[in-house]
Amino acid sequence: MTPFLRLISVIEAVNLINRISPPIGTEYVPLTEAYGRVLADDIRADIDIPGFDRSIKDGFAVNSADTLRASESAPVPLTRVGRITMGRNGNCIAIKPGECAYIPTGGVLPKGADAVVMLEYCQDLGETVLAGRQVSPGENIIRADEDYTRGEGVLTAGERLNVRDIGVLAAVGASRIAVRKRPVIGIVPTGVELVPPDKVPEAGDVRDVNSYLCGAFVQERGGVPRYYEIVRDDPADLEAVLTSALDECDAILITGGSSKDDRDITAGVIGSLGEVLAHGIALAPGKPTIIGKIGHAPVIGIPGHPASTMVVLAVLAAPLLQSLSGCVSRREAKQKAVLTRNVPSERGREEYVRVKLIGDEAVPLFGKSGLLNTLVESDGLVRVLQGCEGIEAASEVDVTLW
Amino acid sequence: MTPFLRLISVIEAVNLINRISPPIGTEYVPLTEAYGRVLADDIRADIDIPGFDRSIKDGFAVNSADTLRASESAPVPLTRVGRITMGRNGNCIAIKPGECAYIPTGGVLPKGADAVVMLEYCQDLGETVLAGRQVSPGENIIRADEDYTRGEGVLTAGERLNVRDIGVLAAVGASRIAVRKRPVIGIVPTGVELVPPDKVPEAGDVRDVNSYLCGAFVQERGGVPRYYEIVRDDPADLEAVLTSALDECDAILITGGSSKDDRDITAGVIGSLGEVLAHGIALAPGKPTIIGKIGHAPVIGIPGHPASTMVVLAVLAAPLLQSLSGCVSRREAKQKAVLTRNVPSERGREEYVRVKLIGDEAVPLFGKSGLLNTLVESDGLVRVLQGCEGIEAASEVDVTLW
Repeated sequence: MTPFLRLISVIEAVNLINRISPPIGTEYVPLTEAYGRVLADDIRADIDIPGFDRSIKDGFAVNSADTLRASESAPVPLTRVGRITMGRNGNCIAIKPGECAYIPTGGVLPKGADAVVMLEYCQDLGETVLAGRQVSPGENIIRADEDYTRGEGVLTAGERLNVRDIGVLAAVGASRIAVRKRPVIGIVPTGVELVPPDKVPEAGDVRDVNSYLCGAFVQERGGVPRYYEIVRDDPADLEAVLTSALDECDAILITGGSSKDDRDITAGVIGSLGEVLAHGIALAPGKPTIIGKIGHAPVIGIPGHPASTMVVLAVLAAPLLQSLSGCVSRREAKQKAVLTRNVPSERGREEYVRVKLIGDEAVPLFGKSGLLNTLVESDGLVRVLQGCEGIEAASEVDVTLW
Repeated sequence: MTPFLRLISVIEAVNLINRISPPIGTEYVPLTEAYGRVLADDIRADIDIPGFDRSIKDGFAVNSADTLRASESAPVPLTRVGRITMGRNGNCIAIKPGECAYIPTGGVLPKGADAVVMLEYCQDLGETVLAGRQVSPGENIIRADEDYTRGEGVLTAGERLNVRDIGVLAAVGASRIAVRKRPVIGIVPTGVELVPPDKVPEAGDVRDVNSYLCGAFVQERGGVPRYYEIVRDDPADLEAVLTSALDECDAILITGGSSKDDRDITAGVIGSLGEVLAHGIALAPGKPTIIGKIGHAPVIGIPGHPASTMVVLAVLAAPLLQSLSGCVSRREAKQKAVLTRNVPSERGREEYVRVKLIGDEAVPLFGKSGLLNTLVESDGLVRVLQGCEGIEAASEVDVTLW
């Protein structure tokens, strides 16, 4: 048995988790599977982009000097010398002063041209085109290296690849991408009262909810959950399950039990196989959380109620997954809202209150912490800092969305 | 060739897409694979939850009437008659008036008890326990059906299952879940100038970016992208690819080309195989978008620039995927911000301006629409409604996050 260590602050707990959770390995995936993955290397442009002076309008490629003082009422006549078409065989002719060439959006600007007059400002008379608008050098074109210059940094290691990033990777020729492996997170449910969801519980039993909360959370944050069988109250069983999970997982979440006895068993087993680094966090709900390490694997012991499980996942498992996957960029979804009621809190602990958003208002849900229905109804959490005695109604708060 | 139809409004376009995109089929997945999927059936509680009167604290189960006027200075002595343990074999004794029993968090309330006095308010003298706090009936317990009553609706068809939903499904015994099939979305790139990302483009060529933007967007919104080879400027080729895509996909996105000629080819082929329902939307960027239907499959022809591709995805492909997957619940990520500069717009079209968020400020990015770098830098879109001539600097705006 390990002693109950001093309560550590949430920030200490997060720092501890980051310290024991170094990024795991790298693998290569095709571009079509890179969405949502965490970039392992910096990405640079392999070429200038777009790579040629490119029209961004349908119109006529011109020498801008020829359009000086051109206007709708006094258009400038230009001699049409050809028609650019799309692609590498786009008939890349040259124009001389006084000449112009039709160019589609995306076409290669011909030599001698430095701008494009949009189609709607031109009158096409066949061999002659009347340009009815003055253009500046560079107008309606993108320069060969205007988007990215060859060798320029485009994306940075640690970014979680979003939709736009995938587009940029295509543009710079990154068809196979070095990404962080998805962390495999073992989920070990403990509690003599637990039965799997497909069993009908007898009085005193409860279905295992927390394993599935943890598993879905791990999926949401880019990890791979690995589910283990329910461990009842036998420390030897827990030891056996943890030992096999160590071979298969990058980190382990132990869920439950709801009683102090169960948690003491968990802390004891973590201590005997490895090290308990924290037992008790100044966090509500979630105070009896355990942080430890067994071999290479960080381990979090999460207390039993689903509501505290969700808070511990949001506050501590999120940085665990982020750190293991070497991710530096996750932006939390937040929303400002006005609190409809006072939220009391105790000094000396960081408190997370579930709220429901109704328009711009955040309604605190003070249901008993064992209830799922208030958890499902809630949209996110309002944090009351450790030094604070609560937040008054009508205050503006940041709601961290689930 | 189909004629250029009248410009339709964005809301008409969305309604049209919803009309031609009925929900696709249902499949069953285990609970561990249900996260992020769309529920196909309503879910009801199969049992009362928690199913028994359950303590939510470690403490002593009592008859609340016995604690009347109990206080720290005048505790009430109660005779300890046993110890509840966790689970179905939890020694479900009964207590009589004047008696109490130790109960852990999650334990079954013994017969005769109607409340729990928390451990910290009790003094344990062995056979006698001094209860130092008055409790009301029901205090520190959850009633057998307080969370959910058997038969009660728990989740509704059409919800996209989030982490908390997965927990509730476990609680109500839903170990296999009826979910909507993931819509398979064909992605057909067109444009004689396109080369795949793994090729180095020659002058005039560009790498195909839009296919990968579309594919990642489809993944983000719960669909399965199916990529087709680049179709150059031959209508017969496009016809062949679309015909085979029809067999394999629930809907088709045709990307590019950036020039009007390409779009006319696309519209022509959609018209010859099926029907063009809209060609031109009062949307900027994205005006030349085509909406059509071939056989069962809705088809969106998306114009060429990556920036307009992203807007058309956000505005039109999002409802396409939502409608095909029968999803009613998607909440868009939005953030209020203060605009740092005037955003001009033309009346008569709904305009989407890319913005970068810096703290509470939204900085419009007015870069040329062909550039990827401003797209990557942006955090989301500000919408300027069709009847509006722009939004002034310092206005509060809703930013729809990418």
